[in-house]
Amino acid sequence: MTNCPNGQLCIAGLGPGDPELLTLKALRALERADYIFAPCPSATRPSLAASIITAANPALEGKIIKLVFPMSANSSELALAWQEAEETIAGYLLQGHNCVFATEGDPLLYGTFSYISPRLAGRINELPFKYIPGISSPFAAASATGLPLTLGEDKLAILPATCGIEQIEQALGSFEAVALLKVSAIYPRIISLLKGKGLLEKCSLVCHASSPQQQIISGEEALKNICPPYFSILLIRSKKDE
Amino acid sequence: MTNCPNGQLCIAGLGPGDPELLTLKALRALERADYIFAPCPSATRPSLAASIITAANPALEGKIIKLVFPMSANSSELALAWQEAEETIAGYLLQGHNCVFATEGDPLLYGTFSYISPRLAGRINELPFKYIPGISSPFAAASATGLPLTLGEDKLAILPATCGIEQIEQALGSFEAVALLKVSAIYPRIISLLKGKGLLEKCSLVCHASSPQQQIISGEEALKNICPPYFSILLIRSKKDE
Repeated sequence: MTNCPNGQLCIAGLGPGDPELLTLKALRALERADYIFAPCPSATRPSLAASIITAANPALEGKIIKLVFPMSANSSELALAWQEAEETIAGYLLQGHNCVFATEGDPLLYGTFSYISPRLAGRINELPFKYIPGISSPFAAASATGLPLTLGEDKLAILPATCGIEQIEQALGSFEAVALLKVSAIYPRIISLLKGKGLLEKCSLVCHASSPQQQIISGEEALKNICPPYFSILLIRSKKDE
Repeated sequence: MTNCPNGQLCIAGLGPGDPELLTLKALRALERADYIFAPCPSATRPSLAASIITAANPALEGKIIKLVFPMSANSSELALAWQEAEETIAGYLLQGHNCVFATEGDPLLYGTFSYISPRLAGRINELPFKYIPGISSPFAAASATGLPLTLGEDKLAILPATCGIEQIEQALGSFEAVALLKVSAIYPRIISLLKGKGLLEKCSLVCHASSPQQQIISGEEALKNICPPYFSILLIRSKKDE
C-alpha cells in the first residue's frame, strides 16, 4: 500500500440545474474521474447533482456514488451522515482513485462538501483538494430576468430567508440588490415587508431557475398570490434613486 | 427589408479568465453566432473577453468585433462610447445577424452590457435579449482558496471597495462573509480597518483569480506588504463564532 499514493479529490460546482450551465472544466473533471460522489437528501430520493451529470453525459452514470446529506435540523443525524460520507470518500481516495465530489450551484456557496471538508482533509493530508466554481442560482435567476443585479458601486447581498426577517430588512436598507434564497418558509412575511417598503414592484421571483420548469413572477398581485416552491430566488432592486 | 427579421442577441458571461470556466452554453452560443461583440477599455488596448474566447476556440477570432467601453468617470465620454456601441450592435441585429455580446464574469454583476441594454432594447423591440450566466470572480477566488464562503444561514455581501470604507465596515458588521472587489484604490485603509477588527487572519486576497498569474495571499504580514493589482478580490470571513 505504500506504493499506492492517494487519489486526488476535486470538488466541482455543477451549476443550478441546466446541464448546459456546466463549465468545460467541471465536465472534463467528471469525465476523467474514476468515481463521482453525488449528494442526495436520502437513500431513496433522487440526486439533483446526479441528474445534471447524466443529462450532460449519460455515460457518466456508472461512475456515480450517491452520498446521503439529509435535509435535517437534527445534529446527531447530520453528524452520522457526514461521518459516513467522509469515510466513503476517504476509502476511495486511499485506494488511489481520482474522484470528483459534485455539488449543485457553486461548491463554496452553501455547498454540502464544506460540512465534511475539514475532517476529511485531516485524514487525506497528502494533496489539497481542488475546487471548480459553478454558476449559483442567484446568477441563473438574474439571467432569467435579464435585469442587472449591480452596476457601478452597487452592493449585492445574498442571504437565505431562514436567517430571519430582521436580517432581510437590514440588507434591504443598505444594499442596492438583494438575492433571497429559501423564501418559501416565511414567504408571506417577506411579501408584507416588501409591500411596506414599496419594493414589491422592484422584485422578481424566479422559481426553478435554468430548469425546464423555470417561472418568473413579477408584479404585486402575482407575487402575493403564489406559494413559491423550495427552489425559488427572490431578486430585489432596492436602489433608491431609480 | 420587411422580409429580413432582426437577428437575436445573446449576452453571455465568459467567467473570470480561465477559458475552461466557460459554460457549455456560452461556448455553444459563441460558436453558433454570426458575430461576437467583445468589450475593451480602448481601441488600442486588448480585450480580456476576446482573449478568453480565442483561448477557448481560436476559430472564433474572425467573428469578434471589439466595442470600446472606456474605464472613465467622464460622463460625456461614457455616453458617447455607449451610444457608439449601441449603434454598432443595432446595425448588425437589424441586418438579421445573430450575435453574442460577451462579458467577463457574469453579465448582470457589474456587466458592461447593462449600461446600454435599456436603450438598445428600445431600438430592437422584436425579440427579448437572452442572457447566459457566467462564473464571477468572487466565486473563482473562493474556489482558489477552498474556504467556504457561506454555510447554513450565513449571509454573503459582494461589494466594490470604491463604495467607501463606511459601507465596508457596515457589511463586515452584519455579514458572515464579505467579498470585496476593486480593493487596490483604498487598500491601506481596508487593511487598517480589518486589523482594527481583528479580521486580518480571516482574510485571503486572491489576485488574478483563475488565470495563470493567480496568487493567494493570507496572513497579516503578507497582506500588509502587498500592493494588489486591479484584478484582486479580498475574501473575509467575519463570522464571530468560529
